[in-house]
Amino acid sequence: MNQKPHVAIVGATGAVGVEMIKTLEKRNFPVGKLTLLASARSVGKKMPFRGQDIAVTELTKDSFKGIDIALFSAGGGISKEFAPIAAAAGCVVVDNSSAFRMDESVPLVVPEINASDVKRHKGIIANPNCTTAITLMALYPLHQAFSVKRIFASSYQAVSGTGAKAIEELERQVNQVVSGQTVTKEVYPHQIAFNVLPHVDSFLDSGYTKEEMKMENEGRKIMHHPAFRASVTCVRVPVYRAHSVAVSAEFDRPVTVEAARAVLRKAPGLDVVDAPEKKEYPLPLYAAETYNCQVGRIRMDCAMDNGLCFWVVGDQLLKGAALNAVQIAEVLLK
Amino acid sequence: MNQKPHVAIVGATGAVGVEMIKTLEKRNFPVGKLTLLASARSVGKKMPFRGQDIAVTELTKDSFKGIDIALFSAGGGISKEFAPIAAAAGCVVVDNSSAFRMDESVPLVVPEINASDVKRHKGIIANPNCTTAITLMALYPLHQAFSVKRIFASSYQAVSGTGAKAIEELERQVNQVVSGQTVTKEVYPHQIAFNVLPHVDSFLDSGYTKEEMKMENEGRKIMHHPAFRASVTCVRVPVYRAHSVAVSAEFDRPVTVEAARAVLRKAPGLDVVDAPEKKEYPLPLYAAETYNCQVGRIRMDCAMDNGLCFWVVGDQLLKGAALNAVQIAEVLLK
Repeated sequence: MNQKPHVAIVGATGAVGVEMIKTLEKRNFPVGKLTLLASARSVGKKMPFRGQDIAVTELTKDSFKGIDIALFSAGGGISKEFAPIAAAAGCVVVDNSSAFRMDESVPLVVPEINASDVKRHKGIIANPNCTTAITLMALYPLHQAFSVKRIFASSYQAVSGTGAKAIEELERQVNQVVSGQTVTKEVYPHQIAFNVLPHVDSFLDSGYTKEEMKMENEGRKIMHHPAFRASVTCVRVPVYRAHSVAVSAEFDRPVTVEAARAVLRKAPGLDVVDAPEKKEYPLPLYAAETYNCQVGRIRMDCAMDNGLCFWVVGDQLLKGAALNAVQIAEVLLK
Repeated sequence: MNQKPHVAIVGATGAVGVEMIKTLEKRNFPVGKLTLLASARSVGKKMPFRGQDIAVTELTKDSFKGIDIALFSAGGGISKEFAPIAAAAGCVVVDNSSAFRMDESVPLVVPEINASDVKRHKGIIANPNCTTAITLMALYPLHQAFSVKRIFASSYQAVSGTGAKAIEELERQVNQVVSGQTVTKEVYPHQIAFNVLPHVDSFLDSGYTKEEMKMENEGRKIMHHPAFRASVTCVRVPVYRAHSVAVSAEFDRPVTVEAARAVLRKAPGLDVVDAPEKKEYPLPLYAAETYNCQVGRIRMDCAMDNGLCFWVVGDQLLKGAALNAVQIAEVLLK
């Protein structure tokens, strides 16, 4: 690309699409032209970018002619259908869905961890699962220093991870509860307001959800660590934005809190927020709309040797989706 | 006690105290007379019991004359001061605070697990930490069958565990957010509405909170299992009532999902709610105000051999407090 790239966003009106537009602008990504694509339903809707309103056009098989980079976030079905079409048209796709993540020919990238994997792309690069990306932002630097064997993790996932309709569902249900009305459900199978749901993504025969298995599967691929094991419970909580994860990690080499803190303080894209005596620890409410992930509650694990516990929080619409996708696009331009 | 006992409730107007009164009535506990004690602030307040209104009287050193059983739930400070006075007056104290739980001369009892420990009391019996009691309701039957070595657990704790003022805080903050007002904080150090706080009880030098260490310390005592290890992260979530806990447990003996389910189905005080294909799993919203705890999401742990994951939910004001206390009183009468 000798001139500024023509960038397209597929799913431009969704929760992640909106953040992709904002992130391109905020990071001053060298956008030559921006094309916003969505389903027929959203056609004509205008989205602001660099002081202009850009009209959404319909996603079709012909949408990708002349486009250099397409950021996809419109669900796995759309990605499966249109990402290969886009790639065939000479466009490089950064796909936020799970459709291609475990495809051996597709790099799965967190730029702070495995940016060099971008090079081997064949037209499609996958953006990881949000909870996995946020967890790895703290785990990978520790892995480099102490060699991780396995983790036990539980998530506290915000509704915006499900999309814009889930944000509306939490708002609506809270209003219904406050005003004494009957609570209605459209997105989640059970009320999410004033409740927690141990159910994110669909169930596998093993009893795990797909979401829970992404940590091990995607973690192995991103960290180039095929022996990595992860036991995970994923839980949706009534938080609007930013995921939190409680992690117990076992390492091959001895670890101390001080050594871990020193490693984490130097890690890119990560802030150490760990002063419990001052009641300072990462909180999703404060991590919302920030680029960096935050890690805290760092302490020795009291049920394993060479074990460390920590609490990592990140905005899953940003590091878990839009920011990471734009960062991959930035690597492409280097 | 040849006649129906004279029962006192210390902290009768608190979140747990109110449930103690209701539980005595619902379980038809043979109350001869009920005395409700609280601080001077609540004196004169009337609480319903068996169709009558009972006036709250002030807790003093002379409150326990003629009282047979006193259920305490007014905080550790009150328990430390008044439980020994009550015991010296010939009253048997069932104490819901943490004041005496780890005292070797005080039994710490979950009746479904170690009812016989009640016998060795010297005037005071301790009620366990709520999160610990709820977790053990599922863990102990599995321990009997497979011999537990250690657990990794993360909690999702309701605000009512903090008390009535925390319920008001969540309600107030939700209203403030909904109406666009500034959010005010009185009980928690950070906003709890639409947030999660990895901070329950106070911090120890180790980086753990006291709440997190209760699982191992109280678990060892209740299960008579001094080698039990527990790595725990305790998190407050914007749920009004019922705690949830995600558990990964490692056992000495091989375990299967089917064998675990068979054990859990027979466990007293526990319901197996585990049909993910029908979107059935324990939820705090549905477990609120129920006596039995619920366990589900039962699956093999994918990061350890002989490991099992499960999700256990219980009303922490009931099994985690008032119900367990009344059950201990029932054992006393046997």
